[in-house]
Amino acid sequence: MSGTMMTKALTTGSLIAHAEKYHAGTEIVSVETDGTKARTTWGAVGENARRIKAALDTLGVSDGARCATIAWNNRRHLELYFGIGAGGRVTHTINPRLTPEQMIYILNHAEDEVLFLDRTFLPVAAKLGEHLKTVKHYVFMGPRDDEAAGQVEGLLFYDELVAEADPSDGWPELDENAPAALCYTSGTTGNPKGVQYSHRSLVLHSIGGNQPDGLNIAARDTVMPVVPMFHVNAWGVPYIAASVGSKLVMPGPNLDGESLAKLIDAEQVTLSLGVPTIWMGLLAALKSTGIKPSSMKRTVVGGSALPPSMIRDFRDGYGVELIHAWGMTETSPLGTLNQLLQKHDGLSEDTQAKLREGQGRPPWGVELRIVDENGAELPRDGETQGELQIRGHWVVESYFGQDGSALTNDGWFDTGDVATLDADGYMVIRDRSKDIIKSGGEWISTVELENIAIAHPKVSNAAAIAARHPKWDERPVIVAVAAEGETPDEADVLASFEGKVAHWQVPDRVIFVDDLPLGATGKVLKNKLRESYGDVLLEET
Amino acid sequence: MSGTMMTKALTTGSLIAHAEKYHAGTEIVSVETDGTKARTTWGAVGENARRIKAALDTLGVSDGARCATIAWNNRRHLELYFGIGAGGRVTHTINPRLTPEQMIYILNHAEDEVLFLDRTFLPVAAKLGEHLKTVKHYVFMGPRDDEAAGQVEGLLFYDELVAEADPSDGWPELDENAPAALCYTSGTTGNPKGVQYSHRSLVLHSIGGNQPDGLNIAARDTVMPVVPMFHVNAWGVPYIAASVGSKLVMPGPNLDGESLAKLIDAEQVTLSLGVPTIWMGLLAALKSTGIKPSSMKRTVVGGSALPPSMIRDFRDGYGVELIHAWGMTETSPLGTLNQLLQKHDGLSEDTQAKLREGQGRPPWGVELRIVDENGAELPRDGETQGELQIRGHWVVESYFGQDGSALTNDGWFDTGDVATLDADGYMVIRDRSKDIIKSGGEWISTVELENIAIAHPKVSNAAAIAARHPKWDERPVIVAVAAEGETPDEADVLASFEGKVAHWQVPDRVIFVDDLPLGATGKVLKNKLRESYGDVLLEET
Ligand SMILES: Nc1ncnc2c1ncn2[C@@H]1O[C@H](COP(=O)(O)OP(=O)(O)OP(=O)(O)O)[C@@H](O)[C@H]1O
Ligand SMILES: Nc1ncnc2c1ncn2[C@@H]1O[C@H](COP(=O)(O)OP(=O)(O)OP(=O)(O)O)[C@@H](O)[C@H]1O
Ligand SMILES: [Mg+2]
Ligand SMILES: [Mg+2]
Repeated sequence: MSGTMMTKALTTGSLIAHAEKYHAGTEIVSVETDGTKARTTWGAVGENARRIKAALDTLGVSDGARCATIAWNNRRHLELYFGIGAGGRVTHTINPRLTPEQMIYILNHAEDEVLFLDRTFLPVAAKLGEHLKTVKHYVFMGPRDDEAAGQVEGLLFYDELVAEADPSDGWPELDENAPAALCYTSGTTGNPKGVQYSHRSLVLHSIGGNQPDGLNIAARDTVMPVVPMFHVNAWGVPYIAASVGSKLVMPGPNLDGESLAKLIDAEQVTLSLGVPTIWMGLLAALKSTGIKPSSMKRTVVGGSALPPSMIRDFRDGYGVELIHAWGMTETSPLGTLNQLLQKHDGLSEDTQAKLREGQGRPPWGVELRIVDENGAELPRDGETQGELQIRGHWVVESYFGQDGSALTNDGWFDTGDVATLDADGYMVIRDRSKDIIKSGGEWISTVELENIAIAHPKVSNAAAIAARHPKWDERPVIVAVAAEGETPDEADVLASFEGKVAHWQVPDRVIFVDDLPLGATGKVLKNKLRESYGDVLLEET
Repeated sequence: MSGTMMTKALTTGSLIAHAEKYHAGTEIVSVETDGTKARTTWGAVGENARRIKAALDTLGVSDGARCATIAWNNRRHLELYFGIGAGGRVTHTINPRLTPEQMIYILNHAEDEVLFLDRTFLPVAAKLGEHLKTVKHYVFMGPRDDEAAGQVEGLLFYDELVAEADPSDGWPELDENAPAALCYTSGTTGNPKGVQYSHRSLVLHSIGGNQPDGLNIAARDTVMPVVPMFHVNAWGVPYIAASVGSKLVMPGPNLDGESLAKLIDAEQVTLSLGVPTIWMGLLAALKSTGIKPSSMKRTVVGGSALPPSMIRDFRDGYGVELIHAWGMTETSPLGTLNQLLQKHDGLSEDTQAKLREGQGRPPWGVELRIVDENGAELPRDGETQGELQIRGHWVVESYFGQDGSALTNDGWFDTGDVATLDADGYMVIRDRSKDIIKSGGEWISTVELENIAIAHPKVSNAAAIAARHPKWDERPVIVAVAAEGETPDEADVLASFEGKVAHWQVPDRVIFVDDLPLGATGKVLKNKLRESYGDVLLEET
């Protein structure tokens, strides 16, 4: 055939090969599990990843086999992303905050052949061990260590595997639609479901998600993914950073505000990414330590709704731009990201700030729509709420190990979120369908109520839930945590809703608790709260 | 199969669909062929493109047929990019600066079924007409016009086709490896060769080439492609702009410095792209008109070597950053682009400026190597020169209508350029293999000599060529054009080489001419110069 262009498979191996070839000297800083800092480079990470691939060959691990990791964000985990996945197997990251039962379920369901573990999680492995049906090799992510060896029978040592392996092979040629990574959803709404990413979907997510209006990561950036590598591939950052050769700072196990503030300052981080709770912690630490994160220009926040007050606090207090993004395990995760358009230039600062509170608009590569309960598309007017659906190059088609498609008849993925969309594609999450409050036939957004409660100076965190009500079916109730050293008053917090929402949307009660129950990704477990407080209005009447 | 991601074809239709859906209101400014300014939007461009697709269906144009354009950068040409290509045919852009013989050769070789023409090129069409064997329809890119109708028999009118067509179909589902566009090389070194881009290669070039270290075009940018749409798809800008929804300013036929300066100012262009000669013209116009291009932050320059003195003039005089890039028709074209790395931050301004003079480094998606005459890879040390070879997702595999592969046995494309590469991938073009000067067995880079000559205040343009020499085989000779109003002195120009190159590299002669012969893309035709001046040293001795 004449008149053709080269067709090369889109593989994750091409990403790490690029980093190793053209950014060999660029640094990767890794906080190890013992808290010490290690420094390596893309050159060394690339070579070690090739060694891991060779070591798995030597161990006789099957082609295409799932190999699990339970680990923090650190350099060995980064090497495993490529050593397993780019090597023709599937990097299966497991969330250590899941319950032991969930982990056993997931490891058996995925039929993992190998389990890589950070020291922190050796006890977990020891406990799970007898229940795991398919794992043949346990690998400790560190040098030989007698204490570790004593905890798990037949334990192998990462650094020994790497040292003994031959790195001379390049990356294998793979089908771009072959799987490269596997991640289960966080299980907030039921049992975790497995999403298996293909090489193609990961590569398209990397370059499609890293446009100037997207994550916008350049070779000159120093990027700190605080979002865990066991949560949707750290939002794709390891792949993106390899594709552009940026410096990475992997924060390891210490995700408290003070540790992060010091790391940002020491490594001159320019961009970081994580869920809102992490930045709440950082904000408190910046206040208490007086550290100014002067190098940090941008932080991408998603996973759950970003409270507008937090955007303001970071912008006005520290000159850091918080960028709101939305995504799911099922969407790799980048679905939307909030950057303004040229036409917004003339608007007042306040109007611009207001626009940036939402979850943003989709990049090329994914499309959004909202539909009613019959699947009919709803108008993109910025007001009508509907079930959010998505399709595109990095969206799931079928769950791992489940029969049938995960899509609607016409090929869209239903997110389970309720949202508005406007003509430019700006999307605002109003709720999860399961969480939204239906009061007298009208919908009340829990996100909006929570943002108001959290903005109260004496409240540090809050969740709005639907409480059963004899007359209105459901009414909003706030479950709140007091700010440190404060004793907020219920009436006072309720008063702060006046004028901000319609009168009938003001919650009926505020209940103060010491802590909110959090799931494996730090999201509030509203089903737990509904169990505890769902009848609070019935009891009163 | 369970555990799969959606697989959607990578098509150019998805790019324009994204722009039409999410950036409908964003403006496209188009300087029409009569010099007036028209304003449209991505919404209207998208709809018109769908109408063009329907009109071609109605005309009975075959699926996959080549449809040619001879046109300036304007809104109708933009609509044709998508209306033809995304609609399942092939947008074949033709360079109007080619000779009539070359155009006839190309149109017959490509077997174009339709020819779209701007008013400027109606006389050309009238002249070519009888020689064209396959063209069934001639379309005038404008409203019905009796004068035009009189020039070409059976002429159709673009605006009528659009008005009568039904836009209600979406973009067809296509094989991503199907061709979408065709462009012939500029014929500097021989007969033009056709490169046929696939949907996949165009989409990967768009998103791979628009990373933050690449063209870096955001929705907020106002982008002016001065590089013609008949020259390697205007470097991919129409596709990239659609994929991110940026405002476009299409300069039409008036590419002189003053017209461009006024357009930049009026439309607040933030980024422009073009070949060095265009920016020489702009620089002169900025000086003479006093216009400050204050909105313009960046200009991407490639196609031939960017003289370092021009980088300085724009930076120091106008605060505009010139970004040097290298590419070819065969590489879609983005091969390298010059952005610095984090490790260069500490270097002096001069050292940084020096680094930015070269052609830059490859983005993910393409790889470079240099080889010796036996095809053995040479070291990436920044000093060793060799034949530059490239491979990647947007590199040609075989030329249109030519048997066999265009690649080396091991799958690389030989660029015909001579370059150095360093360990970070920074590439510097030293010459074309056919242009390099071989003096006494040593190579002398014509690019380097030209940069020195052009930096002389009394010289406005210069080309270095190999002149035959009885003792050294070849010796460098400069053919130069005097700056306006200046009468430079040969000895004085020659003196400016001292200390800048080794003594034996200083040219033997400077010959002053009124104009340099330029090819169809504005490049100096060195073969013509060698014909005229190649024996100048023999005659003297
Ligand atoms: N910026 C955001 N604002 C509001 N909600 C968000 C945001 N980003 C993500 N979310 C929520 O997180 C969900 C995706 O989370 P994830 O894939 O980690 O698992 P999960 O949905 O919490 O778990 P499971 O599907 O197992 O119940 C989205 O559907 C949405 O409800
Ligand atoms: N930044 C640059 N610096 C120096 N040379 C460049 C640069 N960019 C492009 N070139 C030259 O332009 C060539 C590509 O040009 P193009 O594809 O338009 O056709 P051509 O090579 O001039 O024509 P033909 O192949 O028909 O002779 C490159 O091979 C290189 O020689
Ligand atoms: Mg979910
Ligand atoms: Mg060429």
